Amino acid sequence: MIAIVGGTGPEGCGLALRWARAGEQIVIGSREAARAQATAAQIAEKAGTLGSVEGVDNTVAVKMCDTVVLTVPFAAQADLLKQLKPSLRQGTVLVDATVPLAAAVGGRPTRVLGVWQGSAAEQAAEIVGRTVTVAAAFHNLSATVLDGDHDVDCDVIVCSDDDRARQVASDLAVKIPGVRAIDGGKLENARIVESMTALLITLNIRHKVHGAGWRVTGLGI
Amino acid sequence: MIAIVGGTGPEGCGLALRWARAGEQIVIGSREAARAQATAAQIAEKAGTLGSVEGVDNTVAVKMCDTVVLTVPFAAQADLLKQLKPSLRQGTVLVDATVPLAAAVGGRPTRVLGVWQGSAAEQAAEIVGRTVTVAAAFHNLSATVLDGDHDVDCDVIVCSDDDRARQVASDLAVKIPGVRAIDGGKLENARIVESMTALLITLNIRHKVHGAGWRVTGLGI
Repeated sequence: MIAIVGGTGPEGCGLALRWARAGEQIVIGSREAARAQATAAQIAEKAGTLGSVEGVDNTVAVKMCDTVVLTVPFAAQADLLKQLKPSLRQGTVLVDATVPLAAAVGGRPTRVLGVWQGSAAEQAAEIVGRTVTVAAAFHNLSATVLDGDHDVDCDVIVCSDDDRARQVASDLAVKIPGVRAIDGGKLENARIVESMTALLITLNIRHKVHGAGWRVTGLGI
Repeated sequence: MIAIVGGTGPEGCGLALRWARAGEQIVIGSREAARAQATAAQIAEKAGTLGSVEGVDNTVAVKMCDTVVLTVPFAAQADLLKQLKPSLRQGTVLVDATVPLAAAVGGRPTRVLGVWQGSAAEQAAEIVGRTVTVAAAFHNLSATVLDGDHDVDCDVIVCSDDDRARQVASDLAVKIPGVRAIDGGKLENARIVESMTALLITLNIRHKVHGAGWRVTGLGI
């Protein structure tokens, strides 16, 4: 079971849809259980009968699952994680997809904020403490593309200091048709991967598209 | 004519080789004219008879050319630009490929330094002043791949605040077989593109290759 905290937003919905289609059991988390349920029902209908999708409040979601994917706006990330921390299971893998876009403080979505810890993912790791391991992933996938039926022409770069967390995030990535999971090294490298989302937003604007993404070349894979 | 300042380094040599093969006239610049000449002769031999490659000292190189490509280590960038500034022609387009790798101060090549102006390219723009326009490009091309005969499986993201500078850099990019020039927006976005080189170095190390690169997907081009 995969908890998607902030799962009613476009990125969370898109990931839920793709993982439900891959047969996974998804728990959509939201501040309001009713909203999570409504979103879960929509995703379940769109996904068909393969996986299951249910909706609960964020705290219940993380209590139910060993894998928690965080897809909230940066402005909400720290407070939410502090609130959820007592409810996180020991050994939880937290997959953080947060991007510190300057839009969080009224700035542009094409710019990122400097985060004291280095990245949103490192901030997450500091907050949740040592009983939870953190991987950073899924920053660069277009919510618009995830919400569709086509293969996703984008790689997921996974950064983590923990081999199991990296594996969990990578296994989730390759369940999305078209996606490759790329080992991006340590969690600190999330600084770069997060900022690459801001550049994708620039590319979307400049090229008048909604689904710009990245492929890594030259890896011999 | 294209001046490549720092043209005796691996990135500069690789670019010179590809542009010479495309029929361009290349002026390799170095601190020592003799070294520039020796490198130019090697590149000319490798390139065949299409373009021309000559070697001179950096100051002479920038006096000869309206397009100057800067491929020096970050530690050398600011001092060199200050020294070259009086010799730059009015209207020069400076194409900066500098990456502020932490290796410049004894750190890791998988990390970048914070640059006060935001990026190495913005530092360059501040130093050269208003009679020279700046584009940032070519950060992500593997020197090893450039030095070979195969098409280069990597896009060049071009960032600039000046349309002509962006066009000059883009025209240079597409002279390299396999490369697409991607409009990356304002010069400030060089912050992200520069850091993406550090991530490529991580990917090269993790995947035991020398030519990791990026392709942008989803642009409909």
